[in-house]
Amino acid sequence: MAKPSHDLILKISCPDTPGLVSKIANYIASYHANVVEFNQFADAVNGKFFARLEIDTSEASVSVEDLKDGFAVLGKSIKATWHFRQLPHKTKTALLVTKTTHCLNEILWRAQVGELPIEITSVIGNRRNCQELVERAGLTFHYVDFEDQPKEDAFTEVNEILKSEEVNLVILARFMQIMPGWMCEEYAGKMINIHHSFLPAFIGANPYRQAYNRGVKLIGATCHYVTSDLDAGPIIEQHVSRVQHFHNVNDLTRMGRDCERAALAKGIRYHVYDRTIIDGNRAIVFSD
Amino acid sequence: MAKPSHDLILKISCPDTPGLVSKIANYIASYHANVVEFNQFADAVNGKFFARLEIDTSEASVSVEDLKDGFAVLGKSIKATWHFRQLPHKTKTALLVTKTTHCLNEILWRAQVGELPIEITSVIGNRRNCQELVERAGLTFHYVDFEDQPKEDAFTEVNEILKSEEVNLVILARFMQIMPGWMCEEYAGKMINIHHSFLPAFIGANPYRQAYNRGVKLIGATCHYVTSDLDAGPIIEQHVSRVQHFHNVNDLTRMGRDCERAALAKGIRYHVYDRTIIDGNRAIVFSD
Amino acid sequence: MAKPSHDLILKISCPDTPGLVSKIANYIASYHANVVEFNQFADAVNGKFFARLEIDTSEASVSVEDLKDGFAVLGKSIKATWHFRQLPHKTKTALLVTKTTHCLNEILWRAQVGELPIEITSVIGNRRNCQELVERAGLTFHYVDFEDQPKEDAFTEVNEILKSEEVNLVILARFMQIMPGWMCEEYAGKMINIHHSFLPAFIGANPYRQAYNRGVKLIGATCHYVTSDLDAGPIIEQHVSRVQHFHNVNDLTRMGRDCERAALAKGIRYHVYDRTIIDGNRAIVFSD
Amino acid sequence: MAKPSHDLILKISCPDTPGLVSKIANYIASYHANVVEFNQFADAVNGKFFARLEIDTSEASVSVEDLKDGFAVLGKSIKATWHFRQLPHKTKTALLVTKTTHCLNEILWRAQVGELPIEITSVIGNRRNCQELVERAGLTFHYVDFEDQPKEDAFTEVNEILKSEEVNLVILARFMQIMPGWMCEEYAGKMINIHHSFLPAFIGANPYRQAYNRGVKLIGATCHYVTSDLDAGPIIEQHVSRVQHFHNVNDLTRMGRDCERAALAKGIRYHVYDRTIIDGNRAIVFSD
Repeated sequence: MAKPSHDLILKISCPDTPGLVSKIANYIASYHANVVEFNQFADAVNGKFFARLEIDTSEASVSVEDLKDGFAVLGKSIKATWHFRQLPHKTKTALLVTKTTHCLNEILWRAQVGELPIEITSVIGNRRNCQELVERAGLTFHYVDFEDQPKEDAFTEVNEILKSEEVNLVILARFMQIMPGWMCEEYAGKMINIHHSFLPAFIGANPYRQAYNRGVKLIGATCHYVTSDLDAGPIIEQHVSRVQHFHNVNDLTRMGRDCERAALAKGIRYHVYDRTIIDGNRAIVFSD
Repeated sequence: MAKPSHDLILKISCPDTPGLVSKIANYIASYHANVVEFNQFADAVNGKFFARLEIDTSEASVSVEDLKDGFAVLGKSIKATWHFRQLPHKTKTALLVTKTTHCLNEILWRAQVGELPIEITSVIGNRRNCQELVERAGLTFHYVDFEDQPKEDAFTEVNEILKSEEVNLVILARFMQIMPGWMCEEYAGKMINIHHSFLPAFIGANPYRQAYNRGVKLIGATCHYVTSDLDAGPIIEQHVSRVQHFHNVNDLTRMGRDCERAALAKGIRYHVYDRTIIDGNRAIVFSD
Repeated sequence: MAKPSHDLILKISCPDTPGLVSKIANYIASYHANVVEFNQFADAVNGKFFARLEIDTSEASVSVEDLKDGFAVLGKSIKATWHFRQLPHKTKTALLVTKTTHCLNEILWRAQVGELPIEITSVIGNRRNCQELVERAGLTFHYVDFEDQPKEDAFTEVNEILKSEEVNLVILARFMQIMPGWMCEEYAGKMINIHHSFLPAFIGANPYRQAYNRGVKLIGATCHYVTSDLDAGPIIEQHVSRVQHFHNVNDLTRMGRDCERAALAKGIRYHVYDRTIIDGNRAIVFSD
Repeated sequence: MAKPSHDLILKISCPDTPGLVSKIANYIASYHANVVEFNQFADAVNGKFFARLEIDTSEASVSVEDLKDGFAVLGKSIKATWHFRQLPHKTKTALLVTKTTHCLNEILWRAQVGELPIEITSVIGNRRNCQELVERAGLTFHYVDFEDQPKEDAFTEVNEILKSEEVNLVILARFMQIMPGWMCEEYAGKMINIHHSFLPAFIGANPYRQAYNRGVKLIGATCHYVTSDLDAGPIIEQHVSRVQHFHNVNDLTRMGRDCERAALAKGIRYHVYDRTIIDGNRAIVFSD
């Protein structure tokens, strides 16, 4: 038993006009590639068209490279933004961490058993708390000093590591530093954060304490793309957990960790399988 | 703010072959109708293709009738089973009930406020418990005697009502009689039941008592198409609710009612918006 | 099969000191009443003790009235606030509504089938949209004009109805008027609202539109006690529902209705079974 | 901010008679120990009384040992079964594994960060797949051969390891061997299994394939105590995950892993904090 084999993913967004499905499907079919899955959504509010295709090129009459390159003519004619991803593919990914290990451990395990198609180039920490866990997993840990040098220098050091490792995805796995605007732009659509609250509630510091003080009955976590507008980037995934009056802040923190792990893992999954399309401050997510 | 206007739904299943998306989309586009939403799934296990399209015909160059009729050539050539539904549409629906009112009330309310596009032709009961609720809602209640006449005669009486009212959908809203095989065949794919357990667990009588005795921590309800194989028809929707040791059978029954209402309402919704395709004993559900 | 019969509920809060459980249980036992369920919670943060007892008085050596009155000596000595509720009991309840019927219908049905032990004295509306539904259910509908008279006069009129009907619980079932401070005080701990968002997110108008604009992946509803601080009263219950990018504001509104019905029904249930204790701006909820 | 300090847990079950809460609370209070949390449940169906107390002995007038020993007189007089657990406490725990690492990894992480108060004495595998993960975590891995010796001998070998390590809790973390009756009895109430289905549905082999074939819309996992009646032991916790028609067996397996990890982690947590009381084939769970 297996899913239909697909070795190419196409995601695309453009202004909505009649006949787009037909045009895109025809292009694929004209070279004897086969659309295995076609998900499409037209946003009437903004007049936009979004689609994601899984394609089987095994019988295609041209090379995959040619198939991808040739799409540009159609793509431009419909004023589209598009992205092809050839499978199998492992996204070069760096993790940024501070003290806590739960998100880090979750991602390490999922990457190791093959649930997440990522290649972890390294883990970068502004503390050394996670170093042992990282090195036990056979990975490189970079310590970057955020206290005895200007933050700007520290971020430059982080960026140099990312550049030298040719990182395509940066995951803030409970990294307790605010990213500078220039890095948010540098990695726009390629930097994912897990926020330990059900955004937009409890923006800012100590969300679990805020949640306790407000007496909410559900707490949550939010996985989102990072933008320079703190905690306001496009949301990819959110999880919640039910709480009761007898849960104190420590309990909320403990229960929240499970939300964070789940939301982050799913958010990364959607990103690396090209299931997300950023549309302003919202994310279109073809969830599975 | 509105969804793209669509006035035609096409659902289709056929053997999977390359180029199907293209062929179907081309047919629609060739008459200047526009595909607003295209959801497609290819089942590699059985080599089947399933799709659901929402179509805007407002700019079409032919009448909707012609568009529907003309599809037959393509449909036959790809060995498809398909169904067009022109909107707005209200499915003529009869409800069968016995004693309890919770599912009945849920559907009456959702139909009345316009959440479910159904026209309730009548409610048929083998008890009179629901009569007052039905008549207060301005609907016809038919009492059919299942005790003082052979059951076969009673079911014939039910069927005659359904025929005379030209019913297209039969909802067993906690109807406590086992449908005979001939009615299951007569209304294949058009009769929906709500079973008060998380099938396939606790098949048969008193599922909440069975659940209590087994000490499960979650109970549920299952909405499914009715087939002659009792409680084994294609599942459309399932809901669960968390239970604890201090809940007795009465509590489970009470909590289960909420699962039943939710699962049934959603199941009907998926059916009347042509979001379901029956595939053997499974249901493909393009859920929303 | 039945729960242990209990005919008396005691809820109590006081400063925490050693031996409280023993003192309270002894008082009950000393008159041969039996504690059937004892739930207790000590909040170390604030040094407070909260408990809820279900008591069987069938073998008690004194009358229930005497049992209740006699508790005052102990209650005062431990500086407690407490409340006895003798069962069966139906709380005299008024509903305030505007246009939408979903919350109203939910409560009418639950009251009618005996799920909620309330006696609905009347329904008060500032529009007539719900009138027919109310009268079909055999209940009194009061229309109060909020447009052609000063709001203060309108609220006075509402209050007079509540007074004349000796109402003990006021439910704002999507009542689209802001309660004045004096009514919030008058009905402190006796007025319950359903807010159509996952508070504290999206306070204010059009929360579903706010949620759409922010692109959240979960929407919710919050049932809370009304205080003069708008949308900031003690939270009793919250529900959420998963949303996707293809859901527009109308969809969110539709899905939100189900959250609202569920959260409100549960919140009322907790209140009338004396499962809530207000503690500042939080609610202790002995949920079931 | 902290929970009230408690250093002693008492769980107790006995035939229900009037005055039990008072008697138990008095015993604790008489030695100036303080009940911090009291949860009690009387099962009217079977006439049984279940309670769990968290106790602060810091001001007690006797030693904790004496407090525990002295309870025997009361305990016997009310025909109780009871258990005291003095905190902090780490339960000596062995894990049995076969191939898959997800449950193992989850428990290792939770134990390491202090979420689960267990001391993992060793991990025993009938395959070597998990060996590297275990040894990287600094723990002992025992390989026991289940193929080239009679199974009975293999189980004897397992039991000898458990005995020599004085294990108090055995966790079957996806151990793919059926435990013999004598081991089920030896570790009655001390052996926990995670079953990869929503019991009692899909008992037996390949539950995810069974779930796929039946077309269910929710899959789940069940954490239960092991008894000689395969898959029928008292259920501690269950989790579910929503599935759709496009999920194949591999997807169900992947999604099921998350259910298994969550249900097992919670089940162990409830056990080691003495939140479970086995009552025939059901488990009373004072969940948190």
